This record gives sequence, C-alpha cells and structure tokens, in this order.
Amino acid sequence: MGPLNVAMIGEGFMGRTHSNAWGQVAKFFKPPQKPVKHTVFGMEAEHPEIFAENWGWQNFSTNWEQTIENPEINLVDIVTPNFMHTPPALKALEVGKPVSCEKPIAATLDQARDMAMTAKAKGIPTFVWFNYRRAPAVAFAHQLVKSGALGKIRHVRASYLQDWGGEETPFAWRFKKELAGSGAHGDLNAHIIDMTRFVTGEEITEVAGAIAETFVKRRPIPGTDQFGEVTVDDTVLFLARFSGGAVASFEAARQATGNSNRNQFEINGTLGSLKFDFERMNELQYYDARLPRGVQGWSTILCTHGADHPYVGNWWPDGHLIGYEHCFTNMAYDIIRVLNGLEPTVPVPDFFDAYQTQRVLEAALRSAENRCPVALADVN
Amino acid sequence: MGPLNVAMIGEGFMGRTHSNAWGQVAKFFKPPQKPVKHTVFGMEAEHPEIFAENWGWQNFSTNWEQTIENPEINLVDIVTPNFMHTPPALKALEVGKPVSCEKPIAATLDQARDMAMTAKAKGIPTFVWFNYRRAPAVAFAHQLVKSGALGKIRHVRASYLQDWGGEETPFAWRFKKELAGSGAHGDLNAHIIDMTRFVTGEEITEVAGAIAETFVKRRPIPGTDQFGEVTVDDTVLFLARFSGGAVASFEAARQATGNSNRNQFEINGTLGSLKFDFERMNELQYYDARLPRGVQGWSTILCTHGADHPYVGNWWPDGHLIGYEHCFTNMAYDIIRVLNGLEPTVPVPDFFDAYQTQRVLEAALRSAENRCPVALADVN
Amino acid sequence: MGPLNVAMIGEGFMGRTHSNAWGQVAKFFKPPQKPVKHTVFGMEAEHPEIFAENWGWQNFSTNWEQTIENPEINLVDIVTPNFMHTPPALKALEVGKPVSCEKPIAATLDQARDMAMTAKAKGIPTFVWFNYRRAPAVAFAHQLVKSGALGKIRHVRASYLQDWGGEETPFAWRFKKELAGSGAHGDLNAHIIDMTRFVTGEEITEVAGAIAETFVKRRPIPGTDQFGEVTVDDTVLFLARFSGGAVASFEAARQATGNSNRNQFEINGTLGSLKFDFERMNELQYYDARLPRGVQGWSTILCTHGADHPYVGNWWPDGHLIGYEHCFTNMAYDIIRVLNGLEPTVPVPDFFDAYQTQRVLEAALRSAENRCPVALADVN
Amino acid sequence: MGPLNVAMIGEGFMGRTHSNAWGQVAKFFKPPQKPVKHTVFGMEAEHPEIFAENWGWQNFSTNWEQTIENPEINLVDIVTPNFMHTPPALKALEVGKPVSCEKPIAATLDQARDMAMTAKAKGIPTFVWFNYRRAPAVAFAHQLVKSGALGKIRHVRASYLQDWGGEETPFAWRFKKELAGSGAHGDLNAHIIDMTRFVTGEEITEVAGAIAETFVKRRPIPGTDQFGEVTVDDTVLFLARFSGGAVASFEAARQATGNSNRNQFEINGTLGSLKFDFERMNELQYYDARLPRGVQGWSTILCTHGADHPYVGNWWPDGHLIGYEHCFTNMAYDIIRVLNGLEPTVPVPDFFDAYQTQRVLEAALRSAENRCPVALADVN
Repeated sequence: MGPLNVAMIGEGFMGRTHSNAWGQVAKFFKPPQKPVKHTVFGMEAEHPEIFAENWGWQNFSTNWEQTIENPEINLVDIVTPNFMHTPPALKALEVGKPVSCEKPIAATLDQARDMAMTAKAKGIPTFVWFNYRRAPAVAFAHQLVKSGALGKIRHVRASYLQDWGGEETPFAWRFKKELAGSGAHGDLNAHIIDMTRFVTGEEITEVAGAIAETFVKRRPIPGTDQFGEVTVDDTVLFLARFSGGAVASFEAARQATGNSNRNQFEINGTLGSLKFDFERMNELQYYDARLPRGVQGWSTILCTHGADHPYVGNWWPDGHLIGYEHCFTNMAYDIIRVLNGLEPTVPVPDFFDAYQTQRVLEAALRSAENRCPVALADVN
Repeated sequence: MGPLNVAMIGEGFMGRTHSNAWGQVAKFFKPPQKPVKHTVFGMEAEHPEIFAENWGWQNFSTNWEQTIENPEINLVDIVTPNFMHTPPALKALEVGKPVSCEKPIAATLDQARDMAMTAKAKGIPTFVWFNYRRAPAVAFAHQLVKSGALGKIRHVRASYLQDWGGEETPFAWRFKKELAGSGAHGDLNAHIIDMTRFVTGEEITEVAGAIAETFVKRRPIPGTDQFGEVTVDDTVLFLARFSGGAVASFEAARQATGNSNRNQFEINGTLGSLKFDFERMNELQYYDARLPRGVQGWSTILCTHGADHPYVGNWWPDGHLIGYEHCFTNMAYDIIRVLNGLEPTVPVPDFFDAYQTQRVLEAALRSAENRCPVALADVN
Repeated sequence: MGPLNVAMIGEGFMGRTHSNAWGQVAKFFKPPQKPVKHTVFGMEAEHPEIFAENWGWQNFSTNWEQTIENPEINLVDIVTPNFMHTPPALKALEVGKPVSCEKPIAATLDQARDMAMTAKAKGIPTFVWFNYRRAPAVAFAHQLVKSGALGKIRHVRASYLQDWGGEETPFAWRFKKELAGSGAHGDLNAHIIDMTRFVTGEEITEVAGAIAETFVKRRPIPGTDQFGEVTVDDTVLFLARFSGGAVASFEAARQATGNSNRNQFEINGTLGSLKFDFERMNELQYYDARLPRGVQGWSTILCTHGADHPYVGNWWPDGHLIGYEHCFTNMAYDIIRVLNGLEPTVPVPDFFDAYQTQRVLEAALRSAENRCPVALADVN
Repeated sequence: MGPLNVAMIGEGFMGRTHSNAWGQVAKFFKPPQKPVKHTVFGMEAEHPEIFAENWGWQNFSTNWEQTIENPEINLVDIVTPNFMHTPPALKALEVGKPVSCEKPIAATLDQARDMAMTAKAKGIPTFVWFNYRRAPAVAFAHQLVKSGALGKIRHVRASYLQDWGGEETPFAWRFKKELAGSGAHGDLNAHIIDMTRFVTGEEITEVAGAIAETFVKRRPIPGTDQFGEVTVDDTVLFLARFSGGAVASFEAARQATGNSNRNQFEINGTLGSLKFDFERMNELQYYDARLPRGVQGWSTILCTHGADHPYVGNWWPDGHLIGYEHCFTNMAYDIIRVLNGLEPTVPVPDFFDAYQTQRVLEAALRSAENRCPVALADVN
C-alpha cells in the first residue's frame, strides 16, 4: 500500500501541532501506513509557502476545494477556526474522503448535526481532535474504568480553568459571538465534556442548571482608544446527570487566576476514584477502595510505564515525561490504525461523538438562558 | 470579674469537642475571663454523670430548663442534635443569657428565622459553632481577602466531600428527614456556605440551579433483616452568585470515594487566588498575581507562624501542626473575648449569620425541587 | 489500684507538652490507671506555682530531690534542659521509681551509658520521649515494615530541617557547647536516628563519613553591642550503614530556608517504600511494588482511620487531623500501659534505646572531626 | 552561510534523542543556521541504514574516521557508549571540528583530562549533553540564583533515584566495570553534579565521605542458568563542600523503589530556596524568604510562561507542558547559537566543565574506597 497523503486545511496554532504530529508519528511509532505531509492550504495573506517550508509540507495551496478534490489526497485534516470547519468537512465527505477535524466540530448545533449525519449516511470514517483523550494518563483512566475498577460511578467533577482573560487582555475576534460561537464554553467545556464521556463511558442525559457570565463586558481595541463589546461568555458552569445515574458539575473559565491550563476531572465510583489535572498530565491519581483500609490512599501513578500505559512505550523509558504535543502524535497514530482497519489504542471520537458534545454545550447555554433544567432528549 | 460558668446542653460527639475546648482554652490562651465547666445536661438514659466525670464538668443535670435558668450560669452552649437546638436557644434568650449553638442552628428555616430575630430583638450575644472559620489557615484567608490581596472576586468553588455513605452503611436516624432535616446538605453544605461567606465577605444572592440526589434509597436496619427507607439526600450540588458578582459552585457528598473529610474551597480574584483543603488544614494555598510573572505560582503557606497567623502563637512553635479540635478551642477564646467586650481574632458568626446560611440551604433545596433558579430575596 | 502520681521535674516548653499529655490522656483514652498531675518541680525563679496553677498540677516544689523521694510519687517525668537530665534520672532509679525522660537523655555519652546501665541493672522501667514515634503515621510505618511490606531495606534517607538559625538570630545558651552539648545534631539528628531505628527495626552499625559545620560563627548578644562566639554546629550531615545492609544519609539543619520543621524520612525496600514528612504529620506516603505495575504509585495515606491506624480511634472521626501535642498524649497512654504490665501500642524507647541513639550521635561527631568512618562497635 | 552539517557518531537510545533534536530545532526555534542531518555512523551489525531512514539522516556510514574527516561535516556529535567517546572526540579536535559529546565524556579521569586539555589547547568549541540544564525549570533556577534571589548558599541536596535494578534484572554489559566504568555513579551522579554546579555557579571543593555499595552481587545471564558477577556499584552516596561554603549531599541509586527517574535537588540560601524534581520537570519550587513572613511558602512555579521562562516561548502556550526530549532540542538550539558567535540562553557545558564533574566522580570513588575525605585539589 502507498503512503497516506494528508492535506491540511488551515495553518495557525493548530496547524503547528498537527504538522508536528504527522512528522513525528512514523519516527516513534510503527504505523501500518506512512503519512506524508502532502499539501497545506492557507489563505494567501497567511503565506502558506512559509508555513509549508518550515513544517515540511511538500506543497501548499490557496484553494481548499481543489486541495480536497486532488485525487492524490487520502485524508483531509481541518484546523481552520471553528466557524470554518463545516464547508471543508462536508466537501471531503462529498468526494468520499476521510476527515479529521479540530474541535468543536462546528460553530452551531445545526452544522454539527449535519456533519455527523452526512458522515454516518456515507459511512466515511471521521475523527475529531479531542486531543486530551490521548494523554496516556487519560487513556489509562478510560481503561481502568472500563475494567470495572471504579464500580458504579456516582460523581463527576470537571473543570477547565485558565487565567489569561483579565481586564487588560485586548479585544480580539474570539470575543465576538459571530466569529467564535462562544467563549470559554466551546473552547474549554467542549474538551471536558468529551473527556468525561470518554472516561466514564456514559452519556450526559440532562443539564440541571447553568450559569453563563461575562465579567469583562468591553475590552480595549489594540492600537486605538476604543473598546470592543464582548458578546461571548467568560465562564460557563453547569450541573448535569450522566446516564448511569452520576451527578456532575462542569466549569470553563478564563479568569481563574493561578490556573494556566488546569484541565481537570475527579470521578468517584463505588469501588474507587480517579483524578486528573493536565498541568501534571503524566500523572493519574487513583484511589482503590478495594485495598485493605489501612493502606488506602490517593496514589500518584506516573503514567510512563511502556508495558502498562497506553502510547508511552513508543516514546521514552520509564520516568521520562512527555508533553502537550505528544497527544496529537498519539492520535495521528490511532487515526492511521483506524484507516487501515485496525483497532485504535483507545476509541477515537468521530463526528457523531462530537455532535453529542455539541448537544451538551447547547443544552447548557439554553439552561443558562432559560434558567431551567434541559433534558438532552430535547436538544437534537 | 468572676469566671464564665458554662452550661452545656447535650453530650455526644460535639459535647466532647466543646468540653475539650472549655478545658483547654485557659491553658493555652490568656482569655479575659476563665471559663468553668459548670453543668452538663444529658438525657437520663445517656448517663450524663459519666460524661461529666470524664470531661471534668462540675455538675450534671437531666433537666435542661432548670439548667438554663440556674442563675449561676452565664453562657448556654447547645450541642444537641439539630432538631433540638431551637427550644433551649429560645429559652436562654428568654432568660437573657448568651447562647453558643452548634450548626446548623435549626432544622427548618422558620426556626432559624425565629432564633435570629429573637436574638436581635433582645440584643443578646449569640454564637454559632461554624468551627472551620477558626482554622488558622481559614482565618488568615479571611484576613488576606479583607486586605485586598485578591482584588475583585470572580469565582468561588466549594465542596465538602466525604465517603462513609456507601451501600453497606446501615440505616440510622440521620437518614430520616423528620429527624435529620436533610442529609449531606445541612451537614456539609452549611459549613462551606458559612466559610465562603466568611472568607469572601460577600453574601450569596441567588441559587442558579441545583441537584439533590439519593443514590442509596434503602439501607439495612442493623440487627434485623429489614431495610429502612432513606428520605434525605446523599448529595446536593448547586450553582450560585455572590453579591460582588462572583459565580460559584457548591457540593456536599457522602459517597465521594477517597475523600474522608475534604472540606475545600478555591477562590479566584483579579489579583490573586486562594485554595484550602481541610485534610491539610494547617496549609493555605495562595497565588499572588502581583508578583513578577516568572515567579508566580501556587504557594503552600504553612500557617503556623505565631506572629503572622491567627491563633497559632498560643499553641506551638513554627512548623508544629494543630488539629481538628483546636478550631473549637480557638473559638471558645473568641467567644470569651466578645462576651467581655473585646474584638474577636476574626469575626464570630451569630444567629443572624447562621440564618443567612440557612436561607441559602433552603434556596438550594427549592431550586433542586422546582428545577429553577431561586433568588435569595425570595427566601426569608 | 490507685492513681499514677506523676512528678514532673522541670517546666519550660516541654513542661507544657507533658502537662497537656497527662491532662488529656484519660479524657480520650481508657488507660488502665488514671494519671494525676501530683507535683511539678521548678527553680524558684521560674515561679513553679504559676505553672502549677495554669496546668493543673496539685503541688509545686523547688526541691527536686524531695519531690522524687516523696513516697506518693509513682513516676518521675524529666523535662529539664539536656545537661540536667542525668541527676534526677539517677536519683529516681536509686529510689526505685520509673522514669520518663526527655530526649536526648544526656549531654554526654558517658552519662547516657551510666543511665542505661543503671536502669538495666535495677530492672526499673524507663521511657524516653522520642515523641515522633507516636505520630500515627510513623507508628503505622513501623507496623508496615514489621509486617514485611517493604521486603529487604536498601536505602534510608532522613533529614530534620529547620530554618530559624539565620544570621539575625541572637546569641543564646543553645549556641554554647558547655550548655547545649551540640547544636542541630543533638536536637534534631537524635530524633531521626531514633525514628529510623524504630521504623526499620534495625541498628546503625557504622558512620561512613560526616560533616559538621557552623555557618554563623558569632551572633549578636541581645541588649548589647557585643557578639557571642558560637561553639556548636549549625548543621551535621552523615552517611551510615544499617545492620540489614541498607545505606543511609542523615542531616540536621537550622538554616534550611523554607523548612519550618521538616522532619522527614524515605525508606526504600525491595518490595515497597515509605515517606514521611512531619509538616504533613497525618499522612504517610507508601509505594507498594507488589501491586500490578500499571497502578503502582506513591499513595498518600491519611492516617486517621480509627480501626486501622494506631491511636487515632481515640481521637476524632476519619479525616479529622490531630496535631503535634497528640504524640505526647499517645505516649503518655503507652507509658501507663507498660507500667501496668500491658503491651504498648508500638514499642516505647527506654534508656537503652536512647543510649544507642547517643552512640550514633557520638560516632557522627567523631567521624566529622577525624574525617574518617567510625564503626559503632568502637563507640560505647 | 550554509547549513550546519552534523555527523552523528553512534545510534542507540541517545541517537534517537539527538536525531529528534536536530530534526525539531528549526521547526520550533529560529536558529541562526539550519542544521542538516548529514551522516550517521553505526557499526555494520547495527544497520545504520535503517536508523538513517527512520530518522531522516541523509547518509549513513560504517567508518567513523572517514565520517569525521568528511569536509562537508561541520559538527561531530558523539552518542556512542561511554568507553567509546574519547577516540572520535580527539579525532574531531585533531581535524579542527567542534564536538558535542554525550555525558559522561569519558570512562576514566585520564581520558576526560586529555579531552578537556586538547580542546582548550586548540581553542575549538566543545559541548557536553548534560541535557537537564535545558529543562526550563532548571535553566530558570540558574537565572534566579545568578540574580541573587537565594543569597548565600548554605545547603545543597541532590539525588538521582531510579528503581529498575532489582534482583530480577538480568546481567548485562552495564554491570561490568570494564565496559561501563561505573554503575549508578557515572550514570546518575554525573548529572546531578553538573546540574548543581550549573545552578549554584559554584565548584565542589571536597568530598568529605562516601559510600559505594553493590546490593546485588550476581545476576542471572539471560538464556542460561548461569550468573554474571556485578563489578559496578548499585548506589553511591557522598558528602561534599562547595566553594562558597555550602555543605552538600549526593546520591545515585538504582534500587530506590518508587522512584522511576527522580532527579532532584534542593538548594537553601540565606534569602530563599529552590527544589526541582525531574518527575515534575515543568515545575520549580521556590521559597522566597524576602516576602512578608505571613505569605511565605513553597511556591510551585509552572515554568511554561514564554516571556519569563527560558526556551518555552518557542514551544506552546502557557500551561502546555513539554517533555524529556525537549531538553535536547533546547540544547541543539544553544549549540547552534554558540557556533554562530551568539550567547546561549544559559551556559552550555564544554569538555572542561565535564572534566570538573569527572573529577568529583573520581574523588567520591576514592573517598569510598579509602574511607576518608578527598580534596578536589588532589584529583586532577
């Protein structure tokens, strides 16, 4: 079989992480098919030729439709801003090509449903870059829960806290609802919704209450003496129920001083509990309530044992940490496996998964607005 | 001036902590008036004479009204189960005596309002044993916030997690609503509502959504092959808003495996943040966003410096920890100060404070039941 | 049987901790014999009558020999400065009375040997207040090692770090060798030598090298413009071997900035490891290498489970911490048990134990001075 | 200027980390000269062509002398086993080419001195891959100390603990002195000697005592029923003094159960202290004793702020961790800077630095063997 020719639609920050992943995966893993960085698409003003040169893409393009249609391309990888995910994704599906798309897959629930339903109808593999599933500690948490180590799940607490959104942070497109869709909610809550669905193996069935708040209502426009009006949330909190009966809380924040990137969850089951914090992404906290009571405690598992923890055997020896971008390389490996008919290390989210997450995001916004609980069955 | 003759109404677990406090306070502090363990009241079946002997009470009684009326008594200290707080409290106020009462002050909002209004009308000092305010780390947190170290408060997250409530835990009075009032909610949320009000210096103005859940609906009755029906919550979560604009989440739980007694909060302000966890009660986590960015971090302050941290100068040298019961002794000291016209180390909650907390508890229950937000202005 | 009448020889800081212990023990434990705070001895200038009043001693005395001889006294408890331990201890043994003495038992090795041999020859019970053995976490560590949980011990690392000894700390008696014996060495290394002997169940057989250093050689004499010459160490480090083959390092320091009272050890065995830090005295860190590799990790055991962890069942419910002084109360309980022919909770060190510790202290000093290893067999 | 053509002498584990570094550096940094993976040398039996293919080396060779002599080569990068460092290093210096060599630079002190003196005499730039200097937290520690934040340094504690060396670990070349030089000592102590020299900016002047121990004296030879005799250490501990008066302890271990790769140090100065643990390599612990006493504490600095912490601005946004191999990429960047006449981010160790470290290693071994202190002035 030939190589996997990837076309990346978009550049920017996410373009760097994806380029790195496609470049590193065959060096560290033995994927069943070698990926080739075939073509990168960028707007002319973004100078995709510079990006292509720096990151080793063989070609660049300023026409995304042609790029997707190019018969040499086997996989369309989308890293554009959120509101520009849908057109290239639908185009790729239209011409029958697998798509891997950044999260959240769409700016609106309608778009997300459309993408999910189209992919399903066509039977084309899709992938969504909820990269935190690929942190070895999170993947191992998924495996532990699946093995029954936690028993029946009672509590889920998840929060994704950042602190860059103070009053001095200037106005930018991300503070406009038309362009960004939402604020911290779509950016951060999307991740922890997906991650807790993944680890628990359960669905969220109800949002029982929510708060959306914008603390800083106008921000200075750089280079001017004017202010832009902020039309997205700074923070969204919501309470929810999982299908297995657990109760849950979620929170996304950009002004949680002292939390650079604290993407964290705690899950309590009848037999044990887990805690994860992305600021210590190589560690998983595990409490095993089946041990003799005297030696029960929160155990800090350094998830770097190649024989026991997902992915890490392909990286470095025990006790040698990996970082943020490794999650993307791990995911690239699993995408190639799936495209070649093999099982991924742990499940890879597709458009349908991402649509479920989008439904929860939408339910939380409706709950905050209408000041009432919202059943997921009513959000489609 | 003579000694402070204390009458303690009730025994039980809380009776031990209070007896210890009244016995230790003059050994370690220099209170303006010496407390005397004058009389303990207990039901005849509880054998108050044994309790009195063990804990050094000079007298015991099986008639609480007489005990309160006894002209030698200067302070009535109530440690009975929650649903028995109101009668002795009102009796003490009726005869014009100061009262210190365990939390929550009452089983119903009506009772709490009655107690608060009576105390206010009569102008008699009252005290409520929200003991966690007296942990030096929490008292210091209050002082830090008051000094402006956190700036404007944006986020409050508080949870009180325990794990003793598994399916095997047998039925008992605490699982019956008529006797216990509520489950984890009144027992645990009461503490963190008071503690966050204390540390932030703000009031809760709205409950924006809530979940109350009972996971284990019947429990084995010891010594029988029957089961008792559980009519109180296992867990209550709610979202709220504070008067200064902060958004907040609260959670009380009894089945949060791995959490023996995790009474914790995190508060994020525009200039800094604080974290506290009672399982490490001698420590306060502080993030000072005013420091140069390169050296900003979460700082673990061991709150044992006598010259700088409240109360501890009366205990041991730096780095020598104190424990749970010291909070009660610290509070006994402040009660005596207030009764003698002196400022307490940090504010002591009175019946009115406790009534505020009770209003929040009630608002959360209504929100969970009616599945909608509840403004505190509507809960009186 | 009558009560246990205690005479305490000395007051000061340690007098407070002991008085508290004798007062609290019967309230929380059910000792086989009730202790009575019969008589406290103090120098006339120290006003023992005030101390007796504050701490509830029935009598005070300014003549320690008479006090010890008083036929009502059943136990002599010594809390004088180190260089004044030996005379009252020998006096008590002479009149056939049990002695409990503060650590280190003597200022010189000769005195320590004399005390140990006299006690042994007379067959009188003795006790030394190495209080850290009574922290539940340390006592539990002893039990775990004894149960074989660690396998063969390979490494011991112990340090006791404080930071009060900066250049600005004024001159005092503790900086004079004639009065203090040594600096950080006798004060702090004595504790960790005893604690690691206790936890490992092994003896130190050799000191393989040592450093003793005095960083601040003269200190300001308060109230004058003069300086006093420091003739004791600021820090002593030494390497050692244990009888089972483990290698070890020890360190005592007073200028280890950031460490208020960090009395810590780590022990690595072939099957598991332990870590303890007195600044988190309610916790024990345990690594069990017999668990499946994927879930191995350092587990933080909160040693507050009454059914499984020593002593704490007599204090508070699970998750409610105890503090520094509880170690002394726990020890008072075990002393009373031993005096009544019962097994202590975990072994109580006697004069012979303390003499072993003193031999190690001496070997370390000789090694530092002679710049060579010293076999313990040569230090008697 | 043309590209920097690198020849790598050797493959193996270190070959992977170096290949990755040379491949990644120009993608993330803007080095003044682009490195090219020109030629990799490997033994014929190692199939260097496969390694070259996987890691993107343009050529491979089985003749290291020719490779070094090739006029296209600008930098010789040595990653062979320790006892094979010296010949290619001297060869490169002979033909006037810069060398970057893995640590420790040589198997014997004589070789190390020879390499250092030759490089010095010829004035050719050399570099040694003490990669831990390039962890942003360690580089920032260096900068903090240099800025005076710690004041006068009093204590250095460094240990590098691993746990893979249990009794079941089979015999291999690394357990033979002729091939490995030493055991944990050269492998691990070399790193912490360099790292503490780097952070403190001081030299070690004396080894005051040492222990070298081999716990497991024979190990099973795989595939046979025979055992091989272990002739290297399992652990080496030593005490030392630094040029500024600080006292220090060092320890390398392979049987410290629970420590996968715990490369750690604590440094106490008169004004502040630092702690680092490679298992949390993105964090630096800092205690600033110049802050008001009440808010002093150990602060966990997440060293991911691009504007303030070395290197990380070239990687990802704040709060996104980097891993083990990034240290090598960071170093590749600084090597290229130095070769182009620019200042490195923080100092890069050269052969002379590595020779200093080798002297300390040798002094420790002599001290352990002769059982006495060894002055560094006597080890040359």
